[in-house]
Amino acid sequence: MSYTIDRTFPGATLAEIDPRTRAALAGQGFGVLTEINVKATLKAKIGVDVPGYVILGACKPAMAHQAMEIEPRVGAMLPCNVILRETAAGVEVSAIDPVASMQAIDNAQLKEVAGQVREMLRAAVEAI
Amino acid sequence: MSYTIDRTFPGATLAEIDPRTRAALAGQGFGVLTEINVKATLKAKIGVDVPGYVILGACKPAMAHQAMEIEPRVGAMLPCNVILRETAAGVEVSAIDPVASMQAIDNAQLKEVAGQVREMLRAAVEAI
Repeated sequence: MSYTIDRTFPGATLAEIDPRTRAALAGQGFGVLTEINVKATLKAKIGVDVPGYVILGACKPAMAHQAMEIEPRVGAMLPCNVILRETAAGVEVSAIDPVASMQAIDNAQLKEVAGQVREMLRAAVEAI
Repeated sequence: MSYTIDRTFPGATLAEIDPRTRAALAGQGFGVLTEINVKATLKAKIGVDVPGYVILGACKPAMAHQAMEIEPRVGAMLPCNVILRETAAGVEVSAIDPVASMQAIDNAQLKEVAGQVREMLRAAVEAI
């Protein structure tokens, strides 16, 4: 089972794909609430060099609120991350599939909401 | 299957438990890389009132690096969230169980690392 929705941009740079990803997320109503520059963080904290890697925490507030009403602790799995990575094939964008990441939560109503969010994230990745 | 490690602090306030949680996480080597004030965000974005709810994104850089070497896209499930919620019973702290959240990832080596991180998060929650 894949746990992410992936798309590769051959020959692109992270600096190009980052703003396009944010715009595509905004087009589906997702704001970016958190951001981790993994490359810079690992260099600063433990001195290791890794390729460019960014984690964007995307949140659509109305859907997050609905999910929390159904499952109060679901915030432990929010926001929905979208990662951007420099790879040999180009920049790879991977959005979390919330149905996969939430499969340990035994809540049928939540799975429905997660399925709706998955389709919105899929549309955002297609629109980058 | 529970997907969080929980502890309730009857009669406590979020303002008391927040710094104690961060200190306990630091004691296990976790830094807090992201923070979402859910209550303030939902009020600002969609005008709804919810009880106090904070999502702290905790990361232990050496473990995160190890996990990414084993499973490059695992950043889609990082950092490890610790949520603080105001409930009728008091402030509830719930740390994600990374073994549960990563169960959709078919990678035995990663499951081992996730199990180690789970025990560190459990120790942090006990130490609050």
